[in-house]
Amino acid sequence: MVHLESVYTYAGKQTVSGNDPSSNRRATAAMVAERAQVSRVAVSRAFNPNASIKPEKRREILRIAGELNYTPDMAARSMVTGRSHLVGVIVPDVCSPWESQEIDALTSALQNAGFATLLFKTRTDYRMDETLLTYMRGFNPDSVITFTENVRPRTLARVLDRAVPIYVCYDDDDTTDATDQPTDGPLFDRLNVIQKTGIEQGIALIQGQGARRIAFISGAAQSIASTERLRTVRAVMARRGLGAPLLIPGDFTYDTARRAVIDQFRIQGPVDAIIAANDVSAFGALDALRHDLGFAVPGDVRVVGFDDISQAHWKAYDLTTVRIDLAERVAALVRLILRRLAAPDAPSLSETVGTQLVVRSTV
Amino acid sequence: MVHLESVYTYAGKQTVSGNDPSSNRRATAAMVAERAQVSRVAVSRAFNPNASIKPEKRREILRIAGELNYTPDMAARSMVTGRSHLVGVIVPDVCSPWESQEIDALTSALQNAGFATLLFKTRTDYRMDETLLTYMRGFNPDSVITFTENVRPRTLARVLDRAVPIYVCYDDDDTTDATDQPTDGPLFDRLNVIQKTGIEQGIALIQGQGARRIAFISGAAQSIASTERLRTVRAVMARRGLGAPLLIPGDFTYDTARRAVIDQFRIQGPVDAIIAANDVSAFGALDALRHDLGFAVPGDVRVVGFDDISQAHWKAYDLTTVRIDLAERVAALVRLILRRLAAPDAPSLSETVGTQLVVRSTV
Repeated sequence: MVHLESVYTYAGKQTVSGNDPSSNRRATAAMVAERAQVSRVAVSRAFNPNASIKPEKRREILRIAGELNYTPDMAARSMVTGRSHLVGVIVPDVCSPWESQEIDALTSALQNAGFATLLFKTRTDYRMDETLLTYMRGFNPDSVITFTENVRPRTLARVLDRAVPIYVCYDDDDTTDATDQPTDGPLFDRLNVIQKTGIEQGIALIQGQGARRIAFISGAAQSIASTERLRTVRAVMARRGLGAPLLIPGDFTYDTARRAVIDQFRIQGPVDAIIAANDVSAFGALDALRHDLGFAVPGDVRVVGFDDISQAHWKAYDLTTVRIDLAERVAALVRLILRRLAAPDAPSLSETVGTQLVVRSTV
Repeated sequence: MVHLESVYTYAGKQTVSGNDPSSNRRATAAMVAERAQVSRVAVSRAFNPNASIKPEKRREILRIAGELNYTPDMAARSMVTGRSHLVGVIVPDVCSPWESQEIDALTSALQNAGFATLLFKTRTDYRMDETLLTYMRGFNPDSVITFTENVRPRTLARVLDRAVPIYVCYDDDDTTDATDQPTDGPLFDRLNVIQKTGIEQGIALIQGQGARRIAFISGAAQSIASTERLRTVRAVMARRGLGAPLLIPGDFTYDTARRAVIDQFRIQGPVDAIIAANDVSAFGALDALRHDLGFAVPGDVRVVGFDDISQAHWKAYDLTTVRIDLAERVAALVRLILRRLAAPDAPSLSETVGTQLVVRSTV
């Protein structure tokens, strides 16, 4: 038994100038429109999977386009319009649960807005990869999304001219003021993430259950999201008279968190509750507590995660966690991109997304 | 505190023809090569993150390129060479663990070979999405990888002319013969997946532990990989005098598998062992057994998964599973793509990857 699963290789495929043996030159959209007795806009819509058009009309236009050997050519179109309809996405890895769920949502949202996602992998230390950015520029993306931290607009401008960056801002504890803004670039947009709400709910819940000795498993050292989560945990705990959290060094992975929790408990003794910088670290903590150390959760130790990835509801973990609404976050990001593309000179734009606690069985 | 995390929007970015205020026209690679006193090949290598070139030489070339406002333009280059250096990848979802790990490995392997991944999401029923394929063709990918099943070359040829498909072949139980080959296309390549080895090891192990009543949790109804796994499980069980497996209908998801195992046990009674079409279904089965039904694993029931995704070693599951070496599979796929691109008229190519049992604590 033999089945086609997956790959079509364009061996000797036709180029833009057309080397198809059945035709000396490519047909134009106008030729298809004329033959199909529709407008050129209708032809364009027929080829856009996200455009609304009657199915039978689309079929007819595509049939005629097939007869004439017409395909819209994005490269040629981008030469004319200055828009490639490509968005570059640069990620350290595609396979971590949060990243994969974010890329999934982002690809859907971009595709619905008429953009294709150009995916690149980069180093995992969150530093800006200038060589890769420069390489990617060659594909003329309309926008670039990259998981980079701490790059100032001036540095960025060396590599990408005329780019308007979007800053992800964690304005949890009111230290945000004008002096903290990156002022060395002419223009930037903001995606505000309010982490405080969910973290306050989580800490209130574990405090209500009597937890006093509380540890925080950090994410990768370079991650601003993790640093900001810790800062907010610290601020909320101080405000509630809980002292400072114990620090357990993690890196967002299961194995590191599990090992670090075992070390923490064996060397410095147990804690009443653990807050993790992401759900995967919380899973590592749960397995360390239950399987390696023999503690009951939530009886002996309470565990709170961060993200609410889809695995958090799996019964073996059933994790209480601070939820970031991924669909909402991605929709806000894509709105910012589209608004900026539509109005290159508009003043600074912003969108805001929140967090909230999802209570399951680990607290 | 404000941090740049992620997005650069090219508002009013320069087009291929160049509308950068600092320059009337784009510099050429030849101009950069001359100024840097290097060859044109060296300029090209400096811009390719995967090309080997001394760091200081790359820096110097990129510096001069920056001064001259030169970027290699892929769209323009593809007009000349007929190669876009894009590989289209069409997937139903990016966020399932196996898919995300496969896309991650594939993006790395393609990038190392000098290709960028153009990612699209499609319907989840594994049917060929003609509209999307046609749309994608507009980007002139050199190759297209799509998670589609059961498409015959003739159907494919209607949408993609001159494509050489790669068939994934599961030739487990020797029914493969010439009459089963898709003969209605002129040329195709093969990726052979030997599922039999790992499945035999798994069934031998559970049979050795006394299991007689064995169930199989299937994947999505349309999935050939799942159908072929079931066929092999049936053949191996018959050969070992174990009768036919009980069928538990799944769809590769955790929730469906968990629900289906609960129903199976409550309606038709328990089994001695469960083989799942993928690891995520095995996790659902494990949680149903332990948390919903109160059975011990592996004491009462043994569970075997398929894939060996990275979550399979998480202690809460610690799953015994049939491993497909993902890196090996992806490397074989990319080799097939590159070999075919290099030799469009070569006779049918093939690569083979195997499977093997990874024994953890669920058997």
